[in-house]
Amino acid sequence: MMETGRKTNRSEGRRVRQRAVGRVARRSLSGFARRLLEEWKRLRLPDAEGERVVVAVSGGADSTALLLALDELIKSERIVLRLTVAHLDHELRGEEGRADARWVSELAESLGHEVALERVSVKALAEEERDNLEQSARRARYQFLLETAAGAKCRHVLTAHTMDDQAETMLLRLLRGSGADGLSGIEPLRALAPESDVLLVRPLVRWARRAETEEYCRERGVDFRVDGMNLDERFARVRVRKSLLPLMRSFNARIVEALSRTSELLREDGQALDAAAAKLLDEASEGAASDAEPLRVDVLVKAPAALRRRALRQWIARGRGDLRRLELVHLTAVENLLFGERGGRRALLPGGASVSRKQGRLWFSR
Amino acid sequence: MMETGRKTNRSEGRRVRQRAVGRVARRSLSGFARRLLEEWKRLRLPDAEGERVVVAVSGGADSTALLLALDELIKSERIVLRLTVAHLDHELRGEEGRADARWVSELAESLGHEVALERVSVKALAEEERDNLEQSARRARYQFLLETAAGAKCRHVLTAHTMDDQAETMLLRLLRGSGADGLSGIEPLRALAPESDVLLVRPLVRWARRAETEEYCRERGVDFRVDGMNLDERFARVRVRKSLLPLMRSFNARIVEALSRTSELLREDGQALDAAAAKLLDEASEGAASDAEPLRVDVLVKAPAALRRRALRQWIARGRGDLRRLELVHLTAVENLLFGERGGRRALLPGGASVSRKQGRLWFSR
Repeated sequence: MMETGRKTNRSEGRRVRQRAVGRVARRSLSGFARRLLEEWKRLRLPDAEGERVVVAVSGGADSTALLLALDELIKSERIVLRLTVAHLDHELRGEEGRADARWVSELAESLGHEVALERVSVKALAEEERDNLEQSARRARYQFLLETAAGAKCRHVLTAHTMDDQAETMLLRLLRGSGADGLSGIEPLRALAPESDVLLVRPLVRWARRAETEEYCRERGVDFRVDGMNLDERFARVRVRKSLLPLMRSFNARIVEALSRTSELLREDGQALDAAAAKLLDEASEGAASDAEPLRVDVLVKAPAALRRRALRQWIARGRGDLRRLELVHLTAVENLLFGERGGRRALLPGGASVSRKQGRLWFSR
Repeated sequence: MMETGRKTNRSEGRRVRQRAVGRVARRSLSGFARRLLEEWKRLRLPDAEGERVVVAVSGGADSTALLLALDELIKSERIVLRLTVAHLDHELRGEEGRADARWVSELAESLGHEVALERVSVKALAEEERDNLEQSARRARYQFLLETAAGAKCRHVLTAHTMDDQAETMLLRLLRGSGADGLSGIEPLRALAPESDVLLVRPLVRWARRAETEEYCRERGVDFRVDGMNLDERFARVRVRKSLLPLMRSFNARIVEALSRTSELLREDGQALDAAAAKLLDEASEGAASDAEPLRVDVLVKAPAALRRRALRQWIARGRGDLRRLELVHLTAVENLLFGERGGRRALLPGGASVSRKQGRLWFSR
C-alpha cells in the first residue's frame, strides 16, 4: 500500500519533468504553481527578503504538492521566501509513521529547505489528558506548529487543505445541523490559536481539487506517500468522501466547487454579522462590553434574532474566556430571559456560569 | 395506485376515530392539531369572528392533514375561522386530475367548508407563454390562489409544505451552490406576490414531518389521495427524497430536523443582513436609494463584502424592477467596478441594463 520511492521515474516521458525538481526554469511555471501564486497575492502572504513560513507536510499528495509548488515559485523567483517544513509523527502507525517522517525530511532537504521533525506519543498524551485520540492529536499538532513557528520566528503556518476537504467539512457540519458559522468551513486565513499572532493559512482551500494535487506531484515526478487516515472524524469523513459526495456528484458534476462557493458566501455573511453583532454589543453594554458588563434588555429585544444571538455568544465568550460546550440550547435559554415572564430569571451555562435578568439588564456571573 | 375512497374504514379500531370527523370533542385535541395551534399563535394568524383564510388542498397527505387539522381546531373551538378550500386541476393527468378535484371538493363540503375549484390547461398555457410546464404551472397556481384570495376577501393563503419539503428544497439549492438566501429555503410567511398584501403561509413547514401528515390522516380515518408528482424540479427532487436523504439519514437519524434548523438559522441571518444592507444602501445613496440613484463608491468599498453584495442586489432590483436572470457573476462584475483600475468601467446586466462608474459613483442605466 505504501509507496516509499521518491522522485521515481515512471517513464521516459517523465524524465524531462523530473529534472525540473530543484531547478525550475523561469518560463515554465506550472498551472498549479501559477494558481497558488494568484492566491498568495490575494491573501497578501509574505514575499520579501528575510521572510520565512512554516509548511506542515504529512507526505500525502496535498501537502507534498503545496511544498513542491512553493519550491517552484521560490526557485523560479516568483516569490522571495524561505521555508521550514514541519512534520509531526503521532506515533500511531509505528514503522510507517517513522518512514513518512524520513521521507518528508529527505524531500525537504533535497529541495534545500529547513526541516522541523517531532515525535509525540498521542496515545500516551490522550491517556494523560483523559481525552480521546482525535482531540489529543489535534492539540499536539497545533502545539507543535506553534512551537515551530516561534522557533523559526515565523508568523505564518501553512497547511494543505483542499477544496475537497472544504466540501467534506461542510457536509459533516451540515449533517449535524450547523448554522452559517459551521457551514463556513475551513477559513483560508485565521489565527493559529486564540490570542496568537501566528496565522494559520490554507492557500489551497479555495481552488485546489485533491485530484489536482496528485496530478501535480506526478508532473513533478514525486511519488507522494499515501496519507495516514485523517484522525479527525475519521469514519464519517471517509463515508462522506466515498458515498455522499459521489452521490451528490450525480446531481451536479461540480458539486465540490458548488459547496466551496456556498461556504465562502456563508463565511462572508458570518463576518458581516459578527461585525454588526459587535456593534450591537457595544450599544447594549453602553460601550463597556470588554469584560461582560451587564447588557440592556431593551436594546437586545429590538435587534434582529441573528445579531442578538451572535452578540450574546461574544458576550458569553468574554465572560467565560471561551465558548466550550456552549450549544444553541444555552443561547436560547439566555434569549428566553429577554422575552415574556414565563420561566426562571436565570439561565445556566455549561461549566457553572450563569446569566440572570434584573433591573432591565442581563448580568453575567461565574 | 390511486386510492379513491374517502373516510374508508380500515379496521374496527379505526371506526371510533372516524366518528371524530366533523365533530371533534373539546378535550380530545390531537397532537397534530395541537402543534398546528402552537404555530398558528406563533405566526399570529387570524383567529376572530369574520376571519377567513384560503387553504390550498391537492388531496395529498400533507394538504389533507392541514385541512383536517384546521377543521379540528375550528370545531373544537380553539380558533375562530372560516375556510375556503382551493384546488387547481392542471389538466395534466386527465381523469385522475378530475377525480382529485371531485375528492377534495366532497371532503371540503362534507366538513362544511367553502370550495374554490378551477381547471387550467397548463400545457396550452405553456405553449402560449412559450415557457416550460413547470414555470407555467407555478404561475397558474399563484394566479389562481391570488384570485381566490381576492374573491373570498382573504389576506392569508395556506399551503401544506412540510419539514421534508424544506430539507429537500435546501438540498436542491445546496446542490446548485446557493448562498444563505437559497439555503434559507421555504419561508413560513411571506407575501404571495411582489406588492401583494396577501400572505403566503406555510404553517407546517417548521415542525411537521411527512410521515406525521400521513399518520394524522389515518387517525382521522381519511384516505388521502396519492399526490400527483410535484411538477417543480421533478426528477431531482424525487432523487433527493429517495436516495440522498436516506443516505444522509445513515449519518444522522434526525437529518431532516437538522437541515430544517440550519435553514431557519440561515433565514434569520439573511433577514439581519438584508436590513443592514438596506441601511448601507441608504448611506451610499445619501438617502435617495428609492429609485436606483447613484451610489458612492467610497461607502461601498469599505463595507463588508456580504453587505455590499446584498446592497447592490437591492439597488439593481430597484433599477430593473426585478432580479430576473441576475447571477453571482453579474454582481461580481459590478463589484469589480469598485476595485482597482483593471477592466472596463461598465458592467452589463442581463436584459440590457448596465452599471457604470464615474465621478466616484456607480450609475445605473437601462
